[in-house]
Amino acid sequence: MTDSPRRRIPEAAVGRLPVYLRILSDLVGEGTTQISSEQLAELAGVNAAKVRKDLSYLGTYGTRGVGYDVQYLLYQIQRELGLNQSWPVIIVGAGNLGQALANYAGITERGFHIVGIVDKDESKIGTVVGGVRVRHADDLQQIAQSKGVSIGIIATPAPHAQEAAEALVRAGIGSILNFAPAVLAVPKGVNVRKVDLALELQILSYYEQCRSDTRGDSQGGQSTPVSA
Amino acid sequence: MTDSPRRRIPEAAVGRLPVYLRILSDLVGEGTTQISSEQLAELAGVNAAKVRKDLSYLGTYGTRGVGYDVQYLLYQIQRELGLNQSWPVIIVGAGNLGQALANYAGITERGFHIVGIVDKDESKIGTVVGGVRVRHADDLQQIAQSKGVSIGIIATPAPHAQEAAEALVRAGIGSILNFAPAVLAVPKGVNVRKVDLALELQILSYYEQCRSDTRGDSQGGQSTPVSA
Repeated sequence: MTDSPRRRIPEAAVGRLPVYLRILSDLVGEGTTQISSEQLAELAGVNAAKVRKDLSYLGTYGTRGVGYDVQYLLYQIQRELGLNQSWPVIIVGAGNLGQALANYAGITERGFHIVGIVDKDESKIGTVVGGVRVRHADDLQQIAQSKGVSIGIIATPAPHAQEAAEALVRAGIGSILNFAPAVLAVPKGVNVRKVDLALELQILSYYEQCRSDTRGDSQGGQSTPVSA
Repeated sequence: MTDSPRRRIPEAAVGRLPVYLRILSDLVGEGTTQISSEQLAELAGVNAAKVRKDLSYLGTYGTRGVGYDVQYLLYQIQRELGLNQSWPVIIVGAGNLGQALANYAGITERGFHIVGIVDKDESKIGTVVGGVRVRHADDLQQIAQSKGVSIGIIATPAPHAQEAAEALVRAGIGSILNFAPAVLAVPKGVNVRKVDLALELQILSYYEQCRSDTRGDSQGGQSTPVSA
C-alpha cells in the first residue's frame, strides 16, 4: 500500500457532497468562480456552519471574505467521492427505467459508464441500449468479472428486485443501487442504497397542500394563492 | 374558510417525512406494529432526537417505553404530506423515463395518478403509457385545466427541460418535479424540485473508493475487503 486509508467522513456529510457537487457544476456552467459558504448553504438548503464543517472534511476551508474557489472545490469533492475515475456499472433490467438510466446524461457524464445491461426477457436480449448490447441475466457474473464491476443498479419491477439483488451479490458486486420500490435482503457487507422516485413528489405534495389551505375552499380551482 | 391554514413545518423536516413514510410502509408490510424513535432514527439514518422533533410537528409524541404506533404514524405522515388524497399529475416527455415514471408503482400507488403524458414526437403521440394516451405537447394547458393538475413532471432530455418548464408554467402548474439534468429558470412562486438520479450512485462510489483504499493496490481485482 502506498497511501494510508482515507479518513472516514460521517454518513450524513457524504450524503450532502453530491448535492454540493451538483450545485457547483451548475455554477461552473454559469461562469461563477467564487462562492461563500452562505451562498452554497442557501442553494443546498442547509445552514452555513454545516457547509463549512462538511467541506472541512475535505481539508478545505475557504478564504474569509472571498469564499471558495468553485472549480477547485468541485475538483476536491469529485476526488473525495471517487469520481475522478469512471466506475463501470451494470444494470439489471432493460425495461423503460433501465433504458432511461443507461441513456441518462447525469450518470454517464459524471463518473460512471454502463458496461452491461441484462434482462430475462428474450425480446430485449440483443437490442442495444445506451450503446450497450442487452445480454441474458445468466451472463451477469461473467460480465461483472470481465469488466471489473463493483456497482450494480436494479431497474427491475418490484417483484423481481430481490432476485436481481441475489444475482448481483453472487456476481461479487458489493454496492447496489435499488430503483425498485421493494425492500431487499442482502448479506452483511453489501452496501444497498435505495432511490425512491416518489420522494420528491411527496415533498411537492406537501407544499401544494399548504397552498390549497391558504386559498381556502372557495378557491379550489385556482392554482395561485389568493391574497385577501 | 373553515380551517385555519396549517402551521408550516421546517423544510428539512418536510424532506425527511417521505423517508419515514417509506420506512413505515415497509414495516407495515412486515407486520410490525410499534416502533421506537431510536429504531426509526437508525433506519432513516438520522438521530433519534431529530426524529422525535420532526414527528412532534405532526402533533405526535409516541409513548415512553412503547414508541409509536406504526399504522397511525403512517396515517399521520400521509395526511401531513397531503397524500390522503390522490394528486393528478402530468408528465412532459414520453420517452423511456416518462414511460418508466408512468408505470412506477412507487408513484401510482402512493398518492399520485398520472392524468396526462405529452410529447412532441409524432411517433409517440397516440401510444398508451401506464394506461394514459400520449398527447401532443400543445395540448398540455387543456389537459392541465380540464383535469385540475397542479403538479407536473419533466422527463425530457436536458436540452428540452427549460421549454417543458415554461409550458408547464403557462398551463398554470405551480409545482414541478424535474428529472432532467438541467437548471431551470421559473417565475417566483413556482416550486421546482430536482431529482438527480446519479446522486445515490455518487454516494455508493464514495464507499466503494473507501473499500479500494482499505484493500490496497495489489488487491485491485477483488470486490470484498481483505482482512490482514
